[in-house]
Amino acid sequence: MLVFILNAGSSSLKYQLMNPVSKEVLATGLCERIGIDGVLKHEFTDGKKLTLDVSMPTHKEAIELVLKTLVEGEGKVINSIDNIDAVGHRAVHGGEEFASSVMVTPKVIETMKKLIPLAPLHNPANIMGMEICQDLMPGKPNVAVFDTAFHQTMPDYAYMYALPYDQYTKHGIRKYGFHGTSHFFVSNEARGMLDKKHNTRIIVCHLGNGSSVSAVLNGKCIDTSMGLTPVQGLMMGTRAGDVGAGAISYMMTQEGMTIDQTLDVMNKKSGILGISGKSSDLREVLQGMQDGDDRCRLAVEMVAYNIKKYVGAYVAALDGVDALCFTGGIGENSSLIREIVCAGLDGMGLNIDPTKNNKRSGKPRDIATNSSTARIFVIPTNEEYVIANDTYKIVSGLEK
Amino acid sequence: MLVFILNAGSSSLKYQLMNPVSKEVLATGLCERIGIDGVLKHEFTDGKKLTLDVSMPTHKEAIELVLKTLVEGEGKVINSIDNIDAVGHRAVHGGEEFASSVMVTPKVIETMKKLIPLAPLHNPANIMGMEICQDLMPGKPNVAVFDTAFHQTMPDYAYMYALPYDQYTKHGIRKYGFHGTSHFFVSNEARGMLDKKHNTRIIVCHLGNGSSVSAVLNGKCIDTSMGLTPVQGLMMGTRAGDVGAGAISYMMTQEGMTIDQTLDVMNKKSGILGISGKSSDLREVLQGMQDGDDRCRLAVEMVAYNIKKYVGAYVAALDGVDALCFTGGIGENSSLIREIVCAGLDGMGLNIDPTKNNKRSGKPRDIATNSSTARIFVIPTNEEYVIANDTYKIVSGLEK
Repeated sequence: MLVFILNAGSSSLKYQLMNPVSKEVLATGLCERIGIDGVLKHEFTDGKKLTLDVSMPTHKEAIELVLKTLVEGEGKVINSIDNIDAVGHRAVHGGEEFASSVMVTPKVIETMKKLIPLAPLHNPANIMGMEICQDLMPGKPNVAVFDTAFHQTMPDYAYMYALPYDQYTKHGIRKYGFHGTSHFFVSNEARGMLDKKHNTRIIVCHLGNGSSVSAVLNGKCIDTSMGLTPVQGLMMGTRAGDVGAGAISYMMTQEGMTIDQTLDVMNKKSGILGISGKSSDLREVLQGMQDGDDRCRLAVEMVAYNIKKYVGAYVAALDGVDALCFTGGIGENSSLIREIVCAGLDGMGLNIDPTKNNKRSGKPRDIATNSSTARIFVIPTNEEYVIANDTYKIVSGLEK
Repeated sequence: MLVFILNAGSSSLKYQLMNPVSKEVLATGLCERIGIDGVLKHEFTDGKKLTLDVSMPTHKEAIELVLKTLVEGEGKVINSIDNIDAVGHRAVHGGEEFASSVMVTPKVIETMKKLIPLAPLHNPANIMGMEICQDLMPGKPNVAVFDTAFHQTMPDYAYMYALPYDQYTKHGIRKYGFHGTSHFFVSNEARGMLDKKHNTRIIVCHLGNGSSVSAVLNGKCIDTSMGLTPVQGLMMGTRAGDVGAGAISYMMTQEGMTIDQTLDVMNKKSGILGISGKSSDLREVLQGMQDGDDRCRLAVEMVAYNIKKYVGAYVAALDGVDALCFTGGIGENSSLIREIVCAGLDGMGLNIDPTKNNKRSGKPRDIATNSSTARIFVIPTNEEYVIANDTYKIVSGLEK
């Protein structure tokens, strides 16, 4: 079984070719600047890279180029497109309609189109990816794996905003949550790593350029930090996270901005970038802090403090905790952030081991002290595997 | 020492006459519908009440009437206005300028005027109250006690929003917090009730029609749930509390509302009222839940769940907890809310005793089990006492 995994964004697409049974990755890559000029960055399993500057007026040319690269020339990893058994698509917004992955049908695409207002940039790109694959590889099954699906098990008192109730019934305004594929993968790995198998209370901190936290009880998500859109929750690379409505309105008025302009600032110019004034990349800001830059120090402390408060909130929501997991670029690599987040949480049963925390490894590991009541895991996420595996299960009829 | 305590709102004013040394309250009352028609509700210490329908075109007529009521007729409690030694004013927004109570001077009023954009409804009414008192009782000292002052000890990583940094430097956009007088009073009482005197970690849940939570370390506030304005944080009677920026923007767009209209909905038509569709009064909604109304059940669960998450977050922020305090109308009276909030927090050292929780009393009390590591207190708040006492200390030169 070979699955072609596609993550289509508005001007980019990521792909991977994977065997979900053996977990073997044959190739991985990225098309950027689609509609502008076009760059293909193709990567082989041995780390060898291939970069091609090729015109990509639309996503169609980009996908055609990727498929061509997989079967011929330097990038060749399979003999023919026929070797691909199915396509697994990362899809962003499944609303309340999709609580799990589904086979792409005309009805699914129609439902995804109805959800476009909730994800105006992402869903159209996702749909385009699906339609192009159906066109270029006729007859091959396509599966949609939604970023929101894992969070559909949240109870109503966790997903509702305290707005007038008809805002929910009329417009679907509620928390949906994102990064669901990662939260599922990591919490599932963590469950496997725990001795206890029942009443498992797991908190996942997915910390990358976009960041979110989730609370997972017995494998089911009961709360998450992102909301109707990904701007809510933790402070991120360029996203503001939680900000009071009064502050949003005040900023709009003082700056004479429209709500769209304000949201643009909160999505693209806030977070680590906005506070540090230096970079959205935490590594550069950590360096700035070491060099004595006070706004970098502030950005780092805010990032860690916000995560810490969510961890505390979710320990309360879960009535305790068995494992706190760190994943994503920052979660997997920043021992300092993990250290600040965990400092003083001993009372909740979370006791970090500084030596284990500072050891680097690309493998899942426990960085809690032996005497810590709860485990602290660092678990590399693998969203592509979840997409490939869901695709495999649905296509082979193991799951409906 | 007799202090006349004034809390001037846009169309109402509350007052109290108190001796801050003996803590004796001579009279308390409320003027409503100022500028519309006018009602005075005067209350004596024995519970006897006096209601007068008198025209109050402005706050001036209202305060004149109150002063007259204190010295003559049925409401008489003192012989002459000269018996009043000082006036203590509740003031809402002190920005970063006031970290404690101050003697009202022309410079203080000037600074409060500069802060009007941050509290456009409240600060003008507060200033008006001060100027009228200076006019009606010339020579008497006036003291301003700010709702935000107690929260000025928050560290920057707690009070900053992750917006572009210049939103803070240019416009003062940050968290200020409110209900500071109550959070100070209750946390101070709790400190006195604890055996330990150092490293005291106290969480105060002020739950009334407006609600907020604060984390108090060694008597100093380190975090609070309200922000630049009081709409942020917990779900309240009619206020929404925490809502993602994406949801706010989406509601605006879908409903075709301006930001002012949206904020009005979030301040006046959301919260318990918005979810239940029934009432902003939790007592009526608790009744509705018992009668089987599912939206009332949802409102109650949301209220409790939101508080619970803030408690967890602040236990993390404080590196543990010594006392969790409930105050305000809901905090003091709803044993059910206290029960749901505390359920499952045993792991954090908070173990509620159901029998103690269900006992009613107007006095400060401990409702934790004897074996609970941390205390759970119910403490009636007394903001008027703080205002009177701050006024007394400043006027008598005990504090500057």
